[in-house]
Amino acid sequence: MKKMDVAVLGATGMIGQRFIQLLEDHPYFKVKGLYASERSEGKRLEDVLKLKDHIFESDTVKMVIDQINTKKIVDECDLAFSGLPSDIAKEYESSLASAGLPVFSNAASHRMRPDVPILIPEVNASHLDIVKTQRTYGDGGYIVTNPNCSATGLAIPMKAIDDAFGLDTVIATTYQAVSGAGYPGVPSLDILGNVIPFIKNEEEKMEEEMLKMLGKFENGAIKSADFNILANCARVPVIDGHLESVTMTLRKDPTIEDLRKCLASFRAEPQRLELPIAPRIPIIVRPEENRPQPLIDLNAGEPEKAKGMAVTVGRLRMKGRFYKMFLLSHNTIRGGAGGSVLNAELAYARRLLK
Amino acid sequence: MKKMDVAVLGATGMIGQRFIQLLEDHPYFKVKGLYASERSEGKRLEDVLKLKDHIFESDTVKMVIDQINTKKIVDECDLAFSGLPSDIAKEYESSLASAGLPVFSNAASHRMRPDVPILIPEVNASHLDIVKTQRTYGDGGYIVTNPNCSATGLAIPMKAIDDAFGLDTVIATTYQAVSGAGYPGVPSLDILGNVIPFIKNEEEKMEEEMLKMLGKFENGAIKSADFNILANCARVPVIDGHLESVTMTLRKDPTIEDLRKCLASFRAEPQRLELPIAPRIPIIVRPEENRPQPLIDLNAGEPEKAKGMAVTVGRLRMKGRFYKMFLLSHNTIRGGAGGSVLNAELAYARRLLK
Amino acid sequence: MKKMDVAVLGATGMIGQRFIQLLEDHPYFKVKGLYASERSEGKRLEDVLKLKDHIFESDTVKMVIDQINTKKIVDECDLAFSGLPSDIAKEYESSLASAGLPVFSNAASHRMRPDVPILIPEVNASHLDIVKTQRTYGDGGYIVTNPNCSATGLAIPMKAIDDAFGLDTVIATTYQAVSGAGYPGVPSLDILGNVIPFIKNEEEKMEEEMLKMLGKFENGAIKSADFNILANCARVPVIDGHLESVTMTLRKDPTIEDLRKCLASFRAEPQRLELPIAPRIPIIVRPEENRPQPLIDLNAGEPEKAKGMAVTVGRLRMKGRFYKMFLLSHNTIRGGAGGSVLNAELAYARRLLK
Amino acid sequence: MKKMDVAVLGATGMIGQRFIQLLEDHPYFKVKGLYASERSEGKRLEDVLKLKDHIFESDTVKMVIDQINTKKIVDECDLAFSGLPSDIAKEYESSLASAGLPVFSNAASHRMRPDVPILIPEVNASHLDIVKTQRTYGDGGYIVTNPNCSATGLAIPMKAIDDAFGLDTVIATTYQAVSGAGYPGVPSLDILGNVIPFIKNEEEKMEEEMLKMLGKFENGAIKSADFNILANCARVPVIDGHLESVTMTLRKDPTIEDLRKCLASFRAEPQRLELPIAPRIPIIVRPEENRPQPLIDLNAGEPEKAKGMAVTVGRLRMKGRFYKMFLLSHNTIRGGAGGSVLNAELAYARRLLK
Repeated sequence: MKKMDVAVLGATGMIGQRFIQLLEDHPYFKVKGLYASERSEGKRLEDVLKLKDHIFESDTVKMVIDQINTKKIVDECDLAFSGLPSDIAKEYESSLASAGLPVFSNAASHRMRPDVPILIPEVNASHLDIVKTQRTYGDGGYIVTNPNCSATGLAIPMKAIDDAFGLDTVIATTYQAVSGAGYPGVPSLDILGNVIPFIKNEEEKMEEEMLKMLGKFENGAIKSADFNILANCARVPVIDGHLESVTMTLRKDPTIEDLRKCLASFRAEPQRLELPIAPRIPIIVRPEENRPQPLIDLNAGEPEKAKGMAVTVGRLRMKGRFYKMFLLSHNTIRGGAGGSVLNAELAYARRLLK
Repeated sequence: MKKMDVAVLGATGMIGQRFIQLLEDHPYFKVKGLYASERSEGKRLEDVLKLKDHIFESDTVKMVIDQINTKKIVDECDLAFSGLPSDIAKEYESSLASAGLPVFSNAASHRMRPDVPILIPEVNASHLDIVKTQRTYGDGGYIVTNPNCSATGLAIPMKAIDDAFGLDTVIATTYQAVSGAGYPGVPSLDILGNVIPFIKNEEEKMEEEMLKMLGKFENGAIKSADFNILANCARVPVIDGHLESVTMTLRKDPTIEDLRKCLASFRAEPQRLELPIAPRIPIIVRPEENRPQPLIDLNAGEPEKAKGMAVTVGRLRMKGRFYKMFLLSHNTIRGGAGGSVLNAELAYARRLLK
Repeated sequence: MKKMDVAVLGATGMIGQRFIQLLEDHPYFKVKGLYASERSEGKRLEDVLKLKDHIFESDTVKMVIDQINTKKIVDECDLAFSGLPSDIAKEYESSLASAGLPVFSNAASHRMRPDVPILIPEVNASHLDIVKTQRTYGDGGYIVTNPNCSATGLAIPMKAIDDAFGLDTVIATTYQAVSGAGYPGVPSLDILGNVIPFIKNEEEKMEEEMLKMLGKFENGAIKSADFNILANCARVPVIDGHLESVTMTLRKDPTIEDLRKCLASFRAEPQRLELPIAPRIPIIVRPEENRPQPLIDLNAGEPEKAKGMAVTVGRLRMKGRFYKMFLLSHNTIRGGAGGSVLNAELAYARRLLK
Repeated sequence: MKKMDVAVLGATGMIGQRFIQLLEDHPYFKVKGLYASERSEGKRLEDVLKLKDHIFESDTVKMVIDQINTKKIVDECDLAFSGLPSDIAKEYESSLASAGLPVFSNAASHRMRPDVPILIPEVNASHLDIVKTQRTYGDGGYIVTNPNCSATGLAIPMKAIDDAFGLDTVIATTYQAVSGAGYPGVPSLDILGNVIPFIKNEEEKMEEEMLKMLGKFENGAIKSADFNILANCARVPVIDGHLESVTMTLRKDPTIEDLRKCLASFRAEPQRLELPIAPRIPIIVRPEENRPQPLIDLNAGEPEKAKGMAVTVGRLRMKGRFYKMFLLSHNTIRGGAGGSVLNAELAYARRLLK
């Protein structure tokens, strides 16, 4: 079977390069073109490397970066992955969709549009169908987004718990890695030996995206969920991996063992479809008293292709009617490029790519 | 006026040395003897220095450390400050109190005894009187404790808010510095570029100490407060300064401006008595969008002698019936040695030292 | 005595703000105006704070930043301190000197000009006279530079050793703090848990500036010194404080004790003149086996006003004909703003300011 | 072919666990028993995990740790790998060799014995024969050591250069990772945001081990090399990977391109024998201006089994008669367990194991 040709937009950034990493040897997709702003035109990937923990194949690293050119992308590619910064993503992604291309985006620009899904296949696979209401769908073009990195790690276990016990109130406090701010991102002078209790718009995004994702898709529209969600976001001196502390009240009264089982046994659409980068076990529950930790659990997920795609949960506790836990997910894989690749895999399985 | 002679127990540790730092040039107290375990007997303070951000006076640094000797301490000193590890604090502190000495302790060993106060003069100055119910009080001996470092920073603003608006539920999530674990404490291999979402017994201590401190002193006994308190504790790669994210519901419905005023205008007994290391403004409310931060706000507090004794609060927000904020306090000054020195100053002002 | 009015150029940067810090309550100088690029015009100092370890006085922090305006600066000020980035420093500093103003600069732009001194008063006070050969000197204007931050810490002990024992070969390898790159400077993604063995042009600057500074001022010209100097420069995850490992061969054969005495007893012009921010002891020799360290020795220097102005040396060793040691200096105080303030104090004492 | 049964001594430590990691699926060797001190007896490997970047196979992690028992080890195993701390290594390793077992050790205890090789197969494969002079060799027992972690990374490129151009003087200054001190090792309070310019006995070990390793094996004895070697050692806040700055003078006058070729084309016995964990290219020369870096180059080495076994060299420069470069090697793989595994592979190829 011939692989589909894909364009990676924002190829000079952290997320763009995670896309390239995840698409090496992908069974459905093949990177056809790398695109970025005018400034990087003509450079090779090896000249603008951002990832320190991945060695690209020798062919990949020689690829030349093009300036974004809608016509060329549409002519040569079957779909696009976007790791563009939000300020320029809006226009470029709209142009590509208008020109008939499916776009799987990590940018925030279109996330809250009523006709655009914020998709996590384990959480709200049904929402994918809302792309059919996009004005550009008739020509084959549409936009699918993945959520903010800190919302992703939270949404997956919250979905499992909501289905089983009903979320009432969720209070999430984050310990977010610096890679979440892209490159150059956070100056070392601000974060070495420090914590910054503020990330612009992050709490708002976490709160509104959670409600949209966990909402129901009914009568062709997404209806927001209605539990309380409170986010507190801070940056810590960690390279990759967002840790989150979660305190919850639920509509039912599970025991801790009920909660553990619910999380550990959670499987969803990507597992049933055996999508290529779907982790066999999407939520890993650790029994140790001091897990999850960024340095240890960052790349959780099996098989090999799904490394960094599982969410790790630990320290399940209850006190009165409150439940507490910590969770960790890889912010630029599961919470970034990997999220969108999984979205495209779902679209492929649903025959929304052609 | 002659200064009172004090013993510092645990003089080889982080907290013990903060006691020594805070007692240099103290108007009431003068360090008479340094005590630690047998292992350090005969060493000079300069041989076992732990603080990297303070230079001791040349006389101080030459002081010789003694093995703990109850009789000698009682003979030579008027009171004792204890920075002993909890496992040995219990016995030594009891012996000293039994021998007629007031003991101001940072150790957890006696904190939950009904007749021992967990004292923060800004929060529960009235609790000091419970020492009169201690069996050893007749002979002049008693034990006063300061709370766990992470409970201290939380208790002060919570007291201000409780008085004004009534606490209903408090959910605190911490970003705790490594100095909280003492020396050698946290191995660098565990925390460099990492977060550890577990500190043994810390959440339990925060929760139970908060309720005891914010409880009422009635009919000669302390009655625990009854709001909900949930703690989530994690260690971050920061040297000094515990940051905490707090989400609350209250019995009243203040505006954010009400809350800000309540915190910024809070003054209590230590401020009225102008105790030597009491900060003139115990709660500093920062207007910036990204404060408090450990590297910037660690040593908040005026005058000079009160550096590290103020709690800094920022990012006051509300959403529906929930209130959110971040706070920061110096864990080995306000949350450790400084807390006990302030307690002794209150006892001095109340004529409980002689 | 009326204080002289000074302009601080580059007031939004790390070095600019160290100038402001060091000039608070200075006996000769008073900050009259803050200047930066057009982008910061109209902002208050409090809006662009970069230093996390200093709290400015309340008047200072309210000062409004102006766009650099040569005419206004010359009209209102008696001298200027420049913390400008090198790319724009060249032109602005030349303009000010041409307009009759003495300029004390931290920028590299003019350092290697034959008629501009790279001045460290402890090392080459006599070089100051070369300003009299500057074309603009007749009108009262001239430029004096301080060396690169990593050259400063090295030059002071090397001067002491050269005078006593004759330098033959000096091999210096650095562990440089991130503040040396200014703000935003080094991205956290590059340096957290990492070392970067490259700082653009740094080795070249260290090598050529060392030879110029330790050269002789003869017949109205500076003649470079002629020992071998080899620099190897790397960035480490430290906020402030450049550590350097030095291996040397000398023309004479001192014992380690000779070397120690030579360094510890070194005093020079600033000490004889008792210049305000000159450290009483410019080179502090530590006897401990594990010093100097950035976290401990960063702010070495007495009295209070000279904190961060002393160089700390330790681990003096010899093996065969090789001598080895480590040294540390504060890169933005002694190696930056403090260096230029001391230079201006020397000019003041020499009646080169009016 | 049946694999040989091996014992891993010190299985609770960093080096011990790297041995276990490297021996998973090894073609010659199979871990038969894990041994440590009495304190860990009966624990499973999963209870004492130290490595955060490796996930052990599920069988491995369930292995139970035994107290060291010479008789049992000799009865059940064909050879032993030792990651024991030096203070106890001496006696245990001697006992095992006396009882007829080949011991491949990372400990320093026996390194400087005249009849024990400090072996790096790329550097001094011929030295292995000196084991035949060990008193215990007749019974099949002997001891082979790998060098100190910081000497390993230096020795390999120095060997290549010495062979081609003759070493005259080598000055090495290190940036060493905290894992070099084992676990718990360096307290976080000492190293967060800091550099410690001292590692006990490290400089002495580097210097004497380098001369022994690069010495000649003649007439049944190792004769030390006679170039000048000066080491300056410091600890930096990096988890794994020792970076070193090297300044050299040589007996010949190569160009930088000569030097580059000499290093890049270097191959030795392990490459000719295609030993299982030997890297195909033992010295990787990077052309970038800012490499090698710990975060990027730590795991250099191909094929997969040789990850962490290559030394990366970069920034080759010359100035006058001095040559400069930076190098990096994985301190617990190439400079620890991997070094000894490669030594055992060489012994296997030489039929010194039976």
